[in-house]
Formats: sequence, C-alpha cells, structure tokens
Amino acid sequence: MKKAEIISIGDELLIGQVINTNAVWMASELSAIGIPTLRITTVGDDSDEITDSMRAAVSRANLILITGGLGPTRDDITKSALCRFFNVSLRFDEPTYARVRELLRSRRYLVLDSQRSQAMVPENARLIPNQVGTAPGMWFENEERIFVIMPGVPFEMKEMMQNWILPELKERFRGDVIIHRTVLTTGAGESMISQRIESWELALPSHIRLAYLPQPGLIRLRLSGSGNDAGVLSAEMCEQVDQLKELIPELIFGYDDDTLEGVIGRTLSERQQTLATAESCTGGYIAHLITSVPGSSRYYTGSIVSYANSIKEQELGVLPGSLLKFGAVSEEVVREMAEGIRIRFGTDYAIATSGIAGPDGGTPEKPVGTVWIAVASARGTTTRRFFFNDERLRFIRRTALAALDMLRKEIGKE
Amino acid sequence: MKKAEIISIGDELLIGQVINTNAVWMASELSAIGIPTLRITTVGDDSDEITDSMRAAVSRANLILITGGLGPTRDDITKSALCRFFNVSLRFDEPTYARVRELLRSRRYLVLDSQRSQAMVPENARLIPNQVGTAPGMWFENEERIFVIMPGVPFEMKEMMQNWILPELKERFRGDVIIHRTVLTTGAGESMISQRIESWELALPSHIRLAYLPQPGLIRLRLSGSGNDAGVLSAEMCEQVDQLKELIPELIFGYDDDTLEGVIGRTLSERQQTLATAESCTGGYIAHLITSVPGSSRYYTGSIVSYANSIKEQELGVLPGSLLKFGAVSEEVVREMAEGIRIRFGTDYAIATSGIAGPDGGTPEKPVGTVWIAVASARGTTTRRFFFNDERLRFIRRTALAALDMLRKEIGKE
Repeated sequence: MKKAEIISIGDELLIGQVINTNAVWMASELSAIGIPTLRITTVGDDSDEITDSMRAAVSRANLILITGGLGPTRDDITKSALCRFFNVSLRFDEPTYARVRELLRSRRYLVLDSQRSQAMVPENARLIPNQVGTAPGMWFENEERIFVIMPGVPFEMKEMMQNWILPELKERFRGDVIIHRTVLTTGAGESMISQRIESWELALPSHIRLAYLPQPGLIRLRLSGSGNDAGVLSAEMCEQVDQLKELIPELIFGYDDDTLEGVIGRTLSERQQTLATAESCTGGYIAHLITSVPGSSRYYTGSIVSYANSIKEQELGVLPGSLLKFGAVSEEVVREMAEGIRIRFGTDYAIATSGIAGPDGGTPEKPVGTVWIAVASARGTTTRRFFFNDERLRFIRRTALAALDMLRKEIGKE
Repeated sequence: MKKAEIISIGDELLIGQVINTNAVWMASELSAIGIPTLRITTVGDDSDEITDSMRAAVSRANLILITGGLGPTRDDITKSALCRFFNVSLRFDEPTYARVRELLRSRRYLVLDSQRSQAMVPENARLIPNQVGTAPGMWFENEERIFVIMPGVPFEMKEMMQNWILPELKERFRGDVIIHRTVLTTGAGESMISQRIESWELALPSHIRLAYLPQPGLIRLRLSGSGNDAGVLSAEMCEQVDQLKELIPELIFGYDDDTLEGVIGRTLSERQQTLATAESCTGGYIAHLITSVPGSSRYYTGSIVSYANSIKEQELGVLPGSLLKFGAVSEEVVREMAEGIRIRFGTDYAIATSGIAGPDGGTPEKPVGTVWIAVASARGTTTRRFFFNDERLRFIRRTALAALDMLRKEIGKE
C-alpha cells in the first residue's frame, strides 16, 4: 500500500507570513483516493534542508509530494537540491520554454531572459505541463518511490494535481476504496446538530466515520467510508445520508461541493426566475457570492449597495419616516429595502440586509452584531432578526449565508 | 543562538480536515522575538511518529514547540510518547485536577471520570496552567534543549504562548534581532519587478534578505534583516526600503499589513471625500473590499451592481446607443457608468468596471478576460483596458485590485 508524505518548501511558511493551505488540500485529495498521508514537513528555501527532508521522507513513505520554490526568482534552490538528491544535471527543455513564452504573450507580459531558467529541468524528470502558470511540475521515479514536485502557487498546484497527478496515482495504486460524502448544513450549531443526530451517529457501522467540519455560518458533516467494493459501499453511504436527511431536513442545503449560491442559482435558472439584492451591512458581499457562480447573469440583475441612509431613501424608496422612527437597522427598513429593489429591478425575488457589523456603531438597544434580513417575492415579504456577535468579516459572511438560506427556503415554498 | 522547530500532532491535520493555523502563528511569534523556525512537522496521533519526530528535531534545533494530542480523548498517546521519550512515568497532579473540576463546573459541565486523566502528567514536566481550558501545558528542559507541549486548541495554545512561554523565552534567549518589512506592490509581475530592482537586490547586504511573495493581483516584497542592535538594523531597513521606493515608486501602494482598500479609505477619511462604485463584471466584490474596512461608512456611500444591461441604462444613465454600438464591455459604457454613479450618488470619486469574467461570454474581438475600468472625479474620467485571462474568481479579484489601484493613483494626483 502506498503511503504519502508532503514536503512544503518556502521561507514564508516558516516566518508566519503564509498559511500552508496547499498541504491540507493535498492530504485531503490523497485521502479521497485511499492514500494516507503520514507526515507533512515544512522547510525553508534551503538546499540542505530540502534534500535532508527528502531523505527522511524516503525512509518512511513511497510517495513524496513536494510544493514550492519553483518560481522564476527562486527555482535555483529547489532545482539544484533535486539535482543533488538524484545526482543528475539540469537540461534546457525547449517545449517548456515555448509554453512559457506563449503564456506570457497571451497575458501581454514581456518575455524576459530570466524566464529561460523556468525551462531548465533535472535530466531525469518527467515534466508535468503547467496549464495556468510558467513553472512545469516534475515527476521522478526512483526504485520503489515516486517524487512529484509542483509549484507552490495554490492555483497551479491544484490544476496539476486534478488533471495529471491524482488520475495517474489513482490508476496505478488501487488500495481500499474510500468514499467521502459531505452533507452541507446551515442554521444550527455543532452541539445542536450533534444532539439531533445522536442516535443515528452512534449506530453508524465502524467502517463509516463522521466528522463535523464547522466554518463561519455553516457546518459540513463528512462521512468517510472504506471497503473493498465501490458499489456496495456507495449504496451504504447513500442509505446513511438518506437517514441523516430525515433527521435534519430543513438544515441541509446541499452536498459535497455545493454552495448556497450555486444551489439557488440552479433553481432560479431552471425556473427562469430572477433575483436582485439591496445590501447595507453586507456591503456587496451577497452580490459577490451570487456572481461568483458562472452563468449568474441569466438570473441575477444586480444590487444596490446602500451604505449611506440617503441612498436607501433615494434609490430604494425607503420612507424617511421609517428611518427616523425605527432606525436603519429595523424590520420596517429592511422590508422596504427588499420590496423597493424587487419592484425597481423587476425581479421575482429580492434580498435585503441591514445590521451593525462593528466594531463601532452599536447601541444598548441594538448592539454590534444585530442584523435584520428580508426576502421579498410575489407571495409577500419574510423578515427575520439575527444576532451575529463576531469579528467584522465573519459577521458579514454569516449574515450573507443566513440571507441566502432564507431565500433558499422561500424558493422552496413554490 | 536558539533555533526552533514546531511539531503539530493530530490525525485531523493529515486527512485535510483542519488547516494548521497554529504552526504559522507560532512561527510568526517566534520570529518576532528573534528565534527562527527551522522546520514545521505535522504527524498523526501515533506514539512512534511523535517520538520519532521529536528525536529528529533534537538533532537540529534547541527549542521544540509541540501542540496537539492533549485532549481528554487522546492524551494517552501524546503523554505516553513524552514519557517514553524522556524515560519517566506519569504522576497525578492534584492542583491541576482541582482546576479542571472548577473550570468544568463554571461552564455547567458534568465532571466525568475521564477528566482525571487530564491531571496525569510526566514526572519531569514543569506545568503551564491552562487559564481557558482543561489540559495544562508542559515545559521540559533536557541538557541544552527546551521542549514545550501545548494543547492543539488555538485559543488555549495562544493564551499559554502569550502569557507564559513567549515572555520566558524572550527573557532567557535574547538572540539576534530580526526585523521584517514588507513592501506591497501591484501593477507588475514578478519578473518585471525583479528586472527593475535587480541592481539594488544584488547590492543588499548579506544580513538582509529579499523574498517575492506573489498573490493574485499583487506582489509582496519582504525584507528580513537580522543584527545585534534593533536601532541600527531598523535604520538600515528603512534606508533599503527608501532605495526600493525610488526604483518602483508607482508600483508601491503600502507596507506590512496595509491593503489597497485600507490605504484608500485612510486618505478619503482624512480629506473628508466620498466614493461610490458601479460594478458589472466584479459583481459587488469591490464594494465588499471597501466595506470590509471598519469605518468605511464615513466615505463610502454605496454601489450599483448592474449585472443586467437594462440596469446599466435605467440606474446609471448609460445611453442605449452606447450599449448598442460599442457593447457593454467598452470604454464608452464604463465611462458612462462611472460618471453616472458619481453624479447620482453625489460623490467625489467613482469607480466602474465592465468585463467578461468567463468561462462563457467571450467573442473573438473581446475574449474572456477583457475588462474596461473607469475612475471618475471632478478632474475628469480616466479609463483603461486590461486583460486578465484567468479563472473566474481570480479574474474578479485582479480586476478589483486594478480598479482600486487606478483610484489610488487618481487620488494621489490631488
């Protein structure tokens, strides 16, 4: 059975400047194809440290994935360490250089001499083309072991892993089948969910494990099953997910890579319905989530971000009297905002938010964290008050998810 | 001089479930008191792996910080590994047990028998009280080396580090002073910058090192200096940063923890000027960046996210003829959007964006990645075309940063 180790290279990872998100992502992807990660080692841009950590990894694992130190300004160190480790020299790879030149031209960059070094590669490397950047990845096989070196840029690393490395590893090393299924929930905390699903959780068979993965505003429940037969295991997992669904139906908004904004977009697209937003405290973040979905222009007309009260009156038709009497953060104002944008932009649905993100602006009656959300449709307007006493960006994210979840439920009524 | 290594223990870190934010935080704090971190090793809840990684760390570093594996369900493994490593036994610590009981009662939890194990500690450990959780930290000194073991819960680890461990380390080991200075740039790629600053970079003294840290849309240049005298080193670093500033003045928008939106907000606040945005392809993301800054309501009135062309006409006064003749992604339309929102929202400055984020919607004349940006002020309107052929979310981020940078330069003219 294959066992993996991950080596992350970069001084920036050792002085606390950058969080090592690459390693966790790679470990998760390896786990999904049944390859356990034994160890993750982070070292600096130092040739001795790199070769030393490779040597140590070789004594424990037979698959070693390495990222970092391949950019145009630093590749000397990693590549020379690789050459030293494998006892080979560098060669110039013409196709790689052609690809680098082409990529830079397509981005309208100058092709500089320093880019030539990107095409210098260890003689014994099988090259993995970089479709989205300049430095190629490299695959080495050495006796019973495989070494794969990728750039540290997350985007480039992921592209190589998904399109080249994982498919090849999957093809060549088939261990136990491991199936992950993630159930996405929002609207309840970890202890509340754990109470509601306790009996189901305790009855899970030993080869299916449950993990709670909380994020601001949502909790993912990940089921990991292992077995010999993919078909049998897959059916078992489906059955467990169905049971879970019966226990917390209203909390579940999707599965695996779904997002609230994606799920909503799918339904609106299918029904050929439209959506607009009026945001105060979320300041455009809901619009950003919605428009991060490809094809969202089919159902999303736009937003008015009314940060100033004058804009709420002028653009959304909020009554000056409501602002005066109830304040901007109130049920009345958020209702008028939602109804105002829905009529103005002529959509089927509309969302509005108004709250106090902090750190300033709270009062004893309306402390920082107070927020009103409204969802308007032809059936009328639903409003709800929440209290997210949290750091500013987390407040914004939790409010946006709560608003999208209210919309999801409203859409579900139809 | 002290050199540190960090060992993070936990199965959850090796299956991609949890990102190791502890290690990066600890490395950053150590760096700030002049102790470099040589290596970060992540291992699972496995006694052999733990002792093996400790043994390896001892051969390189003289300060070893370990987190994780001290919770009520897992502490057997880490503690037995420690006992094995130091060749000692466990003893029951009454004061620790009293503190655990008291804490659980104050949180209205039941005191379970399994909690007794939290008070079992290796004989040779000096205990570090846990003010915010149950498991105590432990400090071991062994010949020339120090081992510190802390719980993996970030909140508990940070409390111990800040109140006990860092002050003691600082007191006992005053090593070289290390100063980091980060220069933030946008508007040019890594190779372009490296060419413009080459002679300066080559002339850097050996105790000041430069690192390029690219992110989508910006490149951070980090200078790390070490020396005996904080005052002398600090002056030297300032001098180097000044020289760098002369070479690429227009690319630098800030230092260290600055952000483009924060720098712009500071200037607008000081001048009591205001800003509005009209976003098409960025879909509210610029508004989100601006409103992520606390206090932004002082200068930011809001945005119209005009995803549909009808909204561009209706809300921003874009001429139907311009849309028809030049298309939504054009200099004319983006200019009309910026001027329209500036007049409508009555602000000093306005930003507008219109582009093709993809993956669909490109044409041979206007391929995916094409984007027009306009910045309007009382002095007139500046427009510019960019081409960011990139994944959707990166396209959005790069466009937003380019727009904010255009605004920064426009504000700088005043």
